[in-house]
Amino acid sequence: MADFSKKYGEYLDEFNSYLNKFCSQLKLQPQILDESLKYSLLLGGKRVRPVLALATADLLGLAHEEILDFALAIELIHTYSLIHDDLPAMDNDDFRRGKPTNHKVFGEGNAVLAGDGLLNTAYSTLIKACYKGKNYVSAAEFICACAGVEGMIAGQSADLLHENDISVNESVLNFIYENKTSKLIMAPVVSASILCGGKYFSELKWYARTLGYLFQLTDDILDVEGSFSDLGKSVGKDKTEGKYTAVRLFGLEESKLRADMTCESCKKYLEGIKGDFSFLADFADYVKSRKK
Amino acid sequence: MADFSKKYGEYLDEFNSYLNKFCSQLKLQPQILDESLKYSLLLGGKRVRPVLALATADLLGLAHEEILDFALAIELIHTYSLIHDDLPAMDNDDFRRGKPTNHKVFGEGNAVLAGDGLLNTAYSTLIKACYKGKNYVSAAEFICACAGVEGMIAGQSADLLHENDISVNESVLNFIYENKTSKLIMAPVVSASILCGGKYFSELKWYARTLGYLFQLTDDILDVEGSFSDLGKSVGKDKTEGKYTAVRLFGLEESKLRADMTCESCKKYLEGIKGDFSFLADFADYVKSRKK
Repeated sequence: MADFSKKYGEYLDEFNSYLNKFCSQLKLQPQILDESLKYSLLLGGKRVRPVLALATADLLGLAHEEILDFALAIELIHTYSLIHDDLPAMDNDDFRRGKPTNHKVFGEGNAVLAGDGLLNTAYSTLIKACYKGKNYVSAAEFICACAGVEGMIAGQSADLLHENDISVNESVLNFIYENKTSKLIMAPVVSASILCGGKYFSELKWYARTLGYLFQLTDDILDVEGSFSDLGKSVGKDKTEGKYTAVRLFGLEESKLRADMTCESCKKYLEGIKGDFSFLADFADYVKSRKK
Repeated sequence: MADFSKKYGEYLDEFNSYLNKFCSQLKLQPQILDESLKYSLLLGGKRVRPVLALATADLLGLAHEEILDFALAIELIHTYSLIHDDLPAMDNDDFRRGKPTNHKVFGEGNAVLAGDGLLNTAYSTLIKACYKGKNYVSAAEFICACAGVEGMIAGQSADLLHENDISVNESVLNFIYENKTSKLIMAPVVSASILCGGKYFSELKWYARTLGYLFQLTDDILDVEGSFSDLGKSVGKDKTEGKYTAVRLFGLEESKLRADMTCESCKKYLEGIKGDFSFLADFADYVKSRKK
């Protein structure tokens, strides 16, 4: 995994540079809007989605400059969703990445606007890319579908609706996993394929969908087994808030077994691809064994 | 104004039919997401922006089918902004169009998601239109800029920031008027021009910018002089919440004089246009004399 970590670091640095440049060119009024957007954007984080975008681009032979704006838009969407999700009316989280959440620093009204602002900025970036032709419009459309009312928003709505349900069932859990998490993990991987005219569309779509499922599985496990110092956010909240999780449905040990199986099937989808997919395969192992 | 009212009614019916059809085709899961989006979308309202889009299309000889999706996207954006603006952390309004606000019916968390969902759906509509060519991308880009962090969001942020300021000054007031209100009034008028290759771009841009200013002026005046039964929302809130308004800066009588002057200059911008701009001119009078 030494090669994987090195390559991850390179992708991370490349994306963070791009993001920093983007932020330094953005000078918003009033200042509190500028600060609140950048506070959450520059809080660090694993940049899972942008790294996936760059790695898939490399696998498909797509130049990074073609995918970076899409990676940026997806990270903006991800960041907006965290800000709104952390609000008292939603998950009510005080910490994110070891720092106070946006509404704790700027107040709830400004946090709502910061999220709205990031979402608008994501779409501004995507629409500007649409000038370049049909594949770009198609990639933008896919990302939008992943984020929207038949994607992430539907997942968050179901997550909120089923809080404190007395019984849990697998079909609701799958709906939440698929929409709340998988869709926005699919966005960077599949949009890279679309930009290449749909190259390995099916293999990459199933890989990313399963990777998203794995990501949420480990998230649920880490909420039980992880620590605040590693995760940078409160742990044990799923249970106290009656969240619909795999751990609640299957138990901890069964969830870990399922994570192992999901990781294997995730990698299996890559086997139809001619090319060096080792980074994407290692990515699945990384997601499974992550501590944060 | 009899002709104006008849024509307004026709535009309104046409747009409402389009919106109803759009809503009936949208079947979202979970049901609460479906209900909360449609609740606010179908609450009625004057549909000022869609009517402006259709009227400008007629003035420029643009087929309605070319502009309807843009009108729809703008109304979705407008509706999302009302839901988020009504939240307790923002303007804390219990009534909108004579009915309980979204968060009073569905709870705050669902209201945040309903707003997010409408914004995503607006951009989904705009991105789909981008397949049709560069003018469509350009119109979508303009609308996005009007709604975003250098448009409406900036205005709302400033509005929130300057609540309860002890002193008010005209430059801050203009910033709020321009961004919070004018930009999204410009969106339907200017995007119609862009779809026609920029026909009468400057005239229409200045007309709409000034109309937006007039709209906010009368809004401020109605908050003092209007009634709950006409407006369908609480009145007198600007004063109790220390809002930055024209009435507070200039006084009521001076604000009314300014509304008269703004209405006249608004109509003046239309004079450079060859064609029957009487509906848009009457629209300014309608905005000035409205009771709701």
